[in-house]
Amino acid sequence: MQNRRVVLAAHVDGFPKVSDFAVDSVDQADPADGEVLIRNHFVSVDPGMRGRLSGQASYTAPVPLGDVVGSATVGRVIASRNPAFAEGQWVAGAFGWQDLGLSNGRGIRRIPEGPIPPSAHIGVLGIPGLTAYFGLLDIGRPQPGETVLVSTAAGAVGSAAGQIAKIQGARVVGIAGGPAKCRWLTEELGFDAAIDRHAESDMAAAVARECPDGVDVFFDNVGNSLVDPVLPLMRLHGRIIVSGQTADYNLRPDEQVGLKNTRSFITARLKMQGLVVFDYAKDFPKAWAELSAWILDGRLRFREDIVEGLEALPGAFVGLFQGENFGRKLARLTT
Amino acid sequence: MQNRRVVLAAHVDGFPKVSDFAVDSVDQADPADGEVLIRNHFVSVDPGMRGRLSGQASYTAPVPLGDVVGSATVGRVIASRNPAFAEGQWVAGAFGWQDLGLSNGRGIRRIPEGPIPPSAHIGVLGIPGLTAYFGLLDIGRPQPGETVLVSTAAGAVGSAAGQIAKIQGARVVGIAGGPAKCRWLTEELGFDAAIDRHAESDMAAAVARECPDGVDVFFDNVGNSLVDPVLPLMRLHGRIIVSGQTADYNLRPDEQVGLKNTRSFITARLKMQGLVVFDYAKDFPKAWAELSAWILDGRLRFREDIVEGLEALPGAFVGLFQGENFGRKLARLTT
Repeated sequence: MQNRRVVLAAHVDGFPKVSDFAVDSVDQADPADGEVLIRNHFVSVDPGMRGRLSGQASYTAPVPLGDVVGSATVGRVIASRNPAFAEGQWVAGAFGWQDLGLSNGRGIRRIPEGPIPPSAHIGVLGIPGLTAYFGLLDIGRPQPGETVLVSTAAGAVGSAAGQIAKIQGARVVGIAGGPAKCRWLTEELGFDAAIDRHAESDMAAAVARECPDGVDVFFDNVGNSLVDPVLPLMRLHGRIIVSGQTADYNLRPDEQVGLKNTRSFITARLKMQGLVVFDYAKDFPKAWAELSAWILDGRLRFREDIVEGLEALPGAFVGLFQGENFGRKLARLTT
Repeated sequence: MQNRRVVLAAHVDGFPKVSDFAVDSVDQADPADGEVLIRNHFVSVDPGMRGRLSGQASYTAPVPLGDVVGSATVGRVIASRNPAFAEGQWVAGAFGWQDLGLSNGRGIRRIPEGPIPPSAHIGVLGIPGLTAYFGLLDIGRPQPGETVLVSTAAGAVGSAAGQIAKIQGARVVGIAGGPAKCRWLTEELGFDAAIDRHAESDMAAAVARECPDGVDVFFDNVGNSLVDPVLPLMRLHGRIIVSGQTADYNLRPDEQVGLKNTRSFITARLKMQGLVVFDYAKDFPKAWAELSAWILDGRLRFREDIVEGLEALPGAFVGLFQGENFGRKLARLTT
């Protein structure tokens, strides 16, 4: 059986290019005793992967040239020699950008049958949703009536973070690129206001306008270029969640924007904290239960931005850094 | 009765100058019913005052031209029409750089008789010691065996922070200016190592050398120029306490150094938090009790750097930003 894969052809330097990736095909062994073979139906396209593609150390090991690009995956068991996984079972895993995945049963999770589509388990119920959940509830801890600002608010993490903040009773302002995304935030997801970053030349002025009382919690996925103008607008005891640094991933050290408005840390007693969601793994079951309940009662909505086929993955990844995605970016490998 | 005062003659722009201050003398009214008149014996010289002298908003209101420069004070009641304060009673207050202070009894605190000298109540038992105590124990929370890095370690806040970290069982490395201060840290206060910032051209390399396992807690009083090189050396789940930003107070916006190594916030899940000690006011009595016990059993030592007379105050303040002080900077106004 052949397994087609997207592999890293060149270490990414600056903005990723389609030519940094290549598609190949390798022989796939049959499952040995205790193993299961999975056909991936959906694979994710994550800005957070950028760190591992440059060959420099991050919180996870860099991807060697020729290796499959990592991602979350959801698929079905097509052959099983492990009694815990029947053929046809939907599972979530992390097999990366390839058609097939082989597992000894560890690192994969059975997806319950039900009204929530399997792809949601690598989106609003996967790393993005869990990042929003723990970042907002453990670090941000918004109180009713507080103002929560969310960047990349139409993305998978930001849209979940904003809606969870609404569920907590906060006033929520999202930053997104373009009027369609902004309309989605306010008209579909219940955000109180949205800032179209394409339409604003002065982000500090725009945030000050939409958050007239200041910002209590800033859930950020952009990085220093956005955090710096927001710092002076933070309220007393404000919390900044460093969830992602999408705009910083592609910058060389000499291009990095620095945080200069750090005087606010003392004047407003600010807390800024980064998170990696895997640190909360023991609490994932509680989060899945709560997120699922919110999805089912209509308070937590999500949007998927799906490209078709393995070949579309490099372009979809490049597009992430051009603000093209609108919701959780996925590739569908089979139906 | 005449009250001599040091008043603000010009708003400070950049580094403070002696000519930003002037000494005058005004008539002092006798205490009315319920009031007490205090003669200040010691007044403090605090880098944190810098923020209020530029005429820009901070967490406290700016000092108007012609007003007394604020500071902590310790003195004795010389006339009382308030039954809670007898003549001769030592009190700590915040009357600023002047000979006399008049109070209705609020904002002053009776200093207990005992072996601890009155001046300590505006030093290791005053705002500096309390800032060290709450910053380290509430934000930093060092665990036994962790590495704690402290900047301006021979100053009033840093020397207390380092010793409290030692009491918690941490390994403590201090940064100070010059061999005499460094020797005091290691030989007198029990710091495990000291970095002489005058002798180091590469602070990141020096911190990496003295903290070979990385830094779990960084208690900083310097600001961005020191936090940035330390950020990549922080360990997983490291905590940065923004206690002061002495090097940043005198910089104009275009001179500010930015924090660029912020990628560590995610990779190492860092938390950076600023504090203003007055937020902990309700817990001051507990802190005073614990700090006093540590002083009396010899585990918490302090050093005072005393200049004589009101006239010496402007020069002493300017000197703070040239790294001249060694311990808590005070002026003695009378004996």
